[in-house]
Amino acid sequence: MASSQVTVLVAGSWGTALACVLADNGHQVTVWTRGAAQAAEINESRTNRKYLKEAELPKTLRATMDMAEACRDADAVVFVAPSSAMREVAKAAMPHLKPEALIVHATKGFETGSLKRMSQVLSEELGRPEGSIVVLSGPSHAEEVVLRLPTTVVVAASELGQAEAAQDLFINDAYFRVYTNPDYIGAETAGAIKNIIGLGAGLSDGLGFGVNAKSALVTRGLAEIGRLGSAMGAHMLTFAGLAGVGDLIATCTSRHSRNYRAGELLAQGLGHEEVQERIGMVVEGVRTTQAASKLAVQYGVEMPITAQLHAVLFEGKPPLQAVEALMGRVRTHEIEETVLFNRT
Amino acid sequence: MASSQVTVLVAGSWGTALACVLADNGHQVTVWTRGAAQAAEINESRTNRKYLKEAELPKTLRATMDMAEACRDADAVVFVAPSSAMREVAKAAMPHLKPEALIVHATKGFETGSLKRMSQVLSEELGRPEGSIVVLSGPSHAEEVVLRLPTTVVVAASELGQAEAAQDLFINDAYFRVYTNPDYIGAETAGAIKNIIGLGAGLSDGLGFGVNAKSALVTRGLAEIGRLGSAMGAHMLTFAGLAGVGDLIATCTSRHSRNYRAGELLAQGLGHEEVQERIGMVVEGVRTTQAASKLAVQYGVEMPITAQLHAVLFEGKPPLQAVEALMGRVRTHEIEETVLFNRT
Repeated sequence: MASSQVTVLVAGSWGTALACVLADNGHQVTVWTRGAAQAAEINESRTNRKYLKEAELPKTLRATMDMAEACRDADAVVFVAPSSAMREVAKAAMPHLKPEALIVHATKGFETGSLKRMSQVLSEELGRPEGSIVVLSGPSHAEEVVLRLPTTVVVAASELGQAEAAQDLFINDAYFRVYTNPDYIGAETAGAIKNIIGLGAGLSDGLGFGVNAKSALVTRGLAEIGRLGSAMGAHMLTFAGLAGVGDLIATCTSRHSRNYRAGELLAQGLGHEEVQERIGMVVEGVRTTQAASKLAVQYGVEMPITAQLHAVLFEGKPPLQAVEALMGRVRTHEIEETVLFNRT
Repeated sequence: MASSQVTVLVAGSWGTALACVLADNGHQVTVWTRGAAQAAEINESRTNRKYLKEAELPKTLRATMDMAEACRDADAVVFVAPSSAMREVAKAAMPHLKPEALIVHATKGFETGSLKRMSQVLSEELGRPEGSIVVLSGPSHAEEVVLRLPTTVVVAASELGQAEAAQDLFINDAYFRVYTNPDYIGAETAGAIKNIIGLGAGLSDGLGFGVNAKSALVTRGLAEIGRLGSAMGAHMLTFAGLAGVGDLIATCTSRHSRNYRAGELLAQGLGHEEVQERIGMVVEGVRTTQAASKLAVQYGVEMPITAQLHAVLFEGKPPLQAVEALMGRVRTHEIEETVLFNRT
């Protein structure tokens, strides 16, 4: 594989982990950050301890605060800003991008207010077709990637050549496996909504319910993801793959997941602002719960888990009542809803 | 709900847990066992410590070694024998069953040799149509059920009236939710094959791989279950439900699962006989790996996880090589196989 110049925006935990993969693959990697101290730490100590306690960063990875310098020569740019900052970061990068640069994003959420998917936001700001923007998703905790533990992801774009170019950049034989998938809308919607289910899983575990309850919740969560996602244009099969059920399982079964940990803290009775503060990084699931509640209305789909999480986060509902409402909402003689389909 | 006479055959961990649910629901419950000491323990100490360390059994639950007494007046009989003993237990029960008795089974495996599903075995021995036999399945660790932690299961039978009768017996408002589903073949095949994936998940964790790897393995496992199951006549959507992905998650993420624990022990280099001995109860996944390997050939479906587990269990393949083979089997530019479908 030829060595490329690749830029990652921004240096959070997932951005930094992806930068490590790219550096391991022999690319010239620059991470852009607004924080002077963080840039210095990355360049001098080869660490990024706020986001990834354990990681020792490759020597070839460079950090910069200068967006022009970061993007000018980049053959590929990987957007990993929080969903709330994506538009602004894209605006800042736009004037400096090479027209032929490959655009990838790995952010899981919807834009607040507009409720747009990240590839829609990038498409608008960068003046490129949505389907040329590659979505990287799948079961991939950053903390494991920086330990070079085996990880498998999907790169999704309707322009297959772009997906394959991203596959070439990221794949390696040692620990990082990459599949292509044309359904970028499925990858984006699944990646966003699963964070809500992750909050719910953390809440269930935090309240002392067991694996039986959590497994049922996650199963219903997959149905919920499928209902909204397919209404938004995703292909149902994506939800049965790595970006769907794979990522959902990773989120709901590991304390590496901020959303899961946030759910555990909610179970202790903390409010969403306190939770956010304790975790110290963006908890996308909180914002996504608001966005998905609105999208559920807009698309006319039933999202019972999202509705209960919304009630806990923003309407003061006690967590135990919310989880009990989810457990108990089965009518006595209900036939199992054949999930993943839009039977609401 | 009217009180019924219900008999559970036999008093292993899952049989005992289901007997507790039935007793909690006000039924007259008898468990049948071959072990005199076990029967005495259940009747006198209200415990069954070999199978369920923590459980205190309801006072109304009775154990007997007399099959005629166990079955004579039973309105419903729940078969939970190991798959290898199911035919023999059914033969023993048959002469004593009331013709109108409801038949339920909750055993996850195929018959060795014949490779038959449990409802086929029961149908043959009891002289009833397969579709009248109710399959109880779903994410349900016995250890959690006896603690009365919330649990959700499926009762599947093509004769809906039978499934509803089973739902009536088992459902309660306190902790045990029961859905009906007509696809008993799906519930049986998913329940059996997921134990193989559980072995694989334990193996992956036991070798020190992380959540990313395990989530990818489970996702591919779901595809593998779907391929064989649908070839055997199951409805694909069942695999997206509680008896499919729900039970799979419960098995792959909890040390309550014997199959998962067996996988962890295999990772330490123990042979399958030693593993069986250490666990001290039947590990269905070991036999199911043999059965599914043969079924894969018979139905012409690809089952890479099953094949690797077979190699570890019966062909002396080192576990690390097997897991690496699974991780690395992706060709460089493979498109994500859209799982759950029969694309082999």
